[in-house]
Amino acid sequence: MHKVTPWEVKGNIDYDQLMKEFGVSKIDDDLLKRIKKKAGALHHFLRRNIFFGHRDLNFILDEYDKGNTFFLYTGRAPSGHTHLGHLVPWMFTKWLQDKFNVELYFQFPDEEKFLFKNNLTLEDTKKYTYENMLDVIALGFDPKKTHFLVDTVHANLMYPEALKVAKRITFSTVKAAFGLTNESNIGSIFYTSMQAVPAFLPSVIKKKKIPCLIPHAIDQDPHFRVSRDVIPKLGYYKPASIQCRFLPGLAGMDKDGKMSASEESTAIYTIDDAQTVKHKINKYAFSGGQATIEEHRKKGGNPDIDIAYQWLLFFEEDDAKLHKIYADYKSGKLLSGELKAILIEKLNTFLKVHQQKRKAAEKKIEKFMFHL
Amino acid sequence: MHKVTPWEVKGNIDYDQLMKEFGVSKIDDDLLKRIKKKAGALHHFLRRNIFFGHRDLNFILDEYDKGNTFFLYTGRAPSGHTHLGHLVPWMFTKWLQDKFNVELYFQFPDEEKFLFKNNLTLEDTKKYTYENMLDVIALGFDPKKTHFLVDTVHANLMYPEALKVAKRITFSTVKAAFGLTNESNIGSIFYTSMQAVPAFLPSVIKKKKIPCLIPHAIDQDPHFRVSRDVIPKLGYYKPASIQCRFLPGLAGMDKDGKMSASEESTAIYTIDDAQTVKHKINKYAFSGGQATIEEHRKKGGNPDIDIAYQWLLFFEEDDAKLHKIYADYKSGKLLSGELKAILIEKLNTFLKVHQQKRKAAEKKIEKFMFHL
Repeated sequence: MHKVTPWEVKGNIDYDQLMKEFGVSKIDDDLLKRIKKKAGALHHFLRRNIFFGHRDLNFILDEYDKGNTFFLYTGRAPSGHTHLGHLVPWMFTKWLQDKFNVELYFQFPDEEKFLFKNNLTLEDTKKYTYENMLDVIALGFDPKKTHFLVDTVHANLMYPEALKVAKRITFSTVKAAFGLTNESNIGSIFYTSMQAVPAFLPSVIKKKKIPCLIPHAIDQDPHFRVSRDVIPKLGYYKPASIQCRFLPGLAGMDKDGKMSASEESTAIYTIDDAQTVKHKINKYAFSGGQATIEEHRKKGGNPDIDIAYQWLLFFEEDDAKLHKIYADYKSGKLLSGELKAILIEKLNTFLKVHQQKRKAAEKKIEKFMFHL
Repeated sequence: MHKVTPWEVKGNIDYDQLMKEFGVSKIDDDLLKRIKKKAGALHHFLRRNIFFGHRDLNFILDEYDKGNTFFLYTGRAPSGHTHLGHLVPWMFTKWLQDKFNVELYFQFPDEEKFLFKNNLTLEDTKKYTYENMLDVIALGFDPKKTHFLVDTVHANLMYPEALKVAKRITFSTVKAAFGLTNESNIGSIFYTSMQAVPAFLPSVIKKKKIPCLIPHAIDQDPHFRVSRDVIPKLGYYKPASIQCRFLPGLAGMDKDGKMSASEESTAIYTIDDAQTVKHKINKYAFSGGQATIEEHRKKGGNPDIDIAYQWLLFFEEDDAKLHKIYADYKSGKLLSGELKAILIEKLNTFLKVHQQKRKAAEKKIEKFMFHL
């Protein structure tokens, strides 16, 4: 049993079931071929079904074919330091920006987690907005084509547009879509209208209808399910989306369907040092291996539930290497400790470079802030 | 039977009953004496019980005595042209500003009526914001001490503060206070938090607790009843208020407890010309006189239900003149047409000057806009 809302993800997630619940379409082979034809290649997140669902992606590609180029919209609601799970949709968004040469609006709704979590102040979320921005910039987005929108900083621009959305959404609707109740605070009830804004704001600014594609983790789908009904009524295109599953937490897929930023032992942060990464993976990463080396050599491990292997699905781009790891682990040739060592090496190599770029990003934030 | 919410006023209003419903205190003789002692005089709205209710006015005067000067906050939700009823709390606010030499924050929540009325666009309410500002300025407020806050223009400043209010108000609370339902739109549900902001924004900006006094018509009390519970939790003083009754509509007090800006035949606008004023009063103002001149001379008129007389209560400052009109009308000496002529003369004299000042105000708006 799973529970998936934009604010809570629990249990071992059945993604096929979730697509049915939400009404999301599967990215099938025809669509993969279509993307490959245009992009020249397929990102390993597409090859491995990590980005697995979509809404109206064919519309985006049809318009693209007609020369009506889309823009990308994704975001991050700051509530803590960036962990590796957060990077997944951003890395893919970066790939889309590069392959299709398109603008990206990146929203930091710094009020969202303030409204939904008792213990967070707006000062906290502003601090994390800054920290999270460094990670986004470190991924290498094009500053000329990437625009940060911060809800409390860009409220003059966003609040009036959010009002137009809000006028067309009733409390009954948000109650059904998000499970809000009569005891929910009125800020949390209003919030979804702010998340709708970047999906049509570029069309407002440029005074023409521009298609919008939103890469996001599937838990955010309820927001766009609601706003897709409203945005066409305001005179803009219904936004399309491409949706990914979660990087599982260290404790295993049945326990942590989604990595939690608030539990240190289930997550690896982009600011963790090499020792910490090694320690967390060795200590906490759920293993699909056997209890003893002898037993492991005999029966082999189970990569399908092994967190080290599952993470390599996200972070090892080379299919051949990955297949070999899978086969060796399954046969018992590769031990759990060795598998973990491969992951530790992979992540620490990545994080070393990322942390340098992250440091350099401190001077670049202003370049990414959206200005009219 | 009456119904009074910030968005709907219906029926013949029983103000004593309303004070009980809302939990508002009466302005008694002791309080009137206290105000008179400080202000040097009593505005005729106080002498005539037009400003009749309050919350914590003694606190404001206590702090004033200690040298902790308050600021004033009032406002106007733009949905149409200004009518004479709108001027009532503003004229009184102007008097308070003069007598106590205090700052005024004047809010134009240009989203409110957009959210509550289907047929209004944000462009409409922005247009009326401008029109209504001209009337406020025409009343002679001190530009050095008067600051206009427009919700969509000052959203960068106001939205983050509104979020802090919104986090502490549940849907159950706004349901009970305003009669909102599950079918209300989520912007209307959030709105009250924006109306709360000017009551503590000066304390935020000046980084010290400043008492706030809100002169307003009693239909706005539910907003402040809710925000008075929240604002102290944010570390500021509970705002005080002083509340007035409505200028009745032309059709009579049992029909139009409050003048409606959306029904032309019940209201006189500040932009109406002398002929229009004369026509509307002669044609629509409910008369307390008798059916024939003979009968009127014999039985006399009833000023207590006569709209021309009721309006003079608001617009004829001279008590002696007013008493004579009352007595003459009651005795039958003054005819209905003559009473209406007195009102027409009074209003047209006022409006002639007001319209000149209103024209001159077009160049002054920028001086009144709040800047950090």
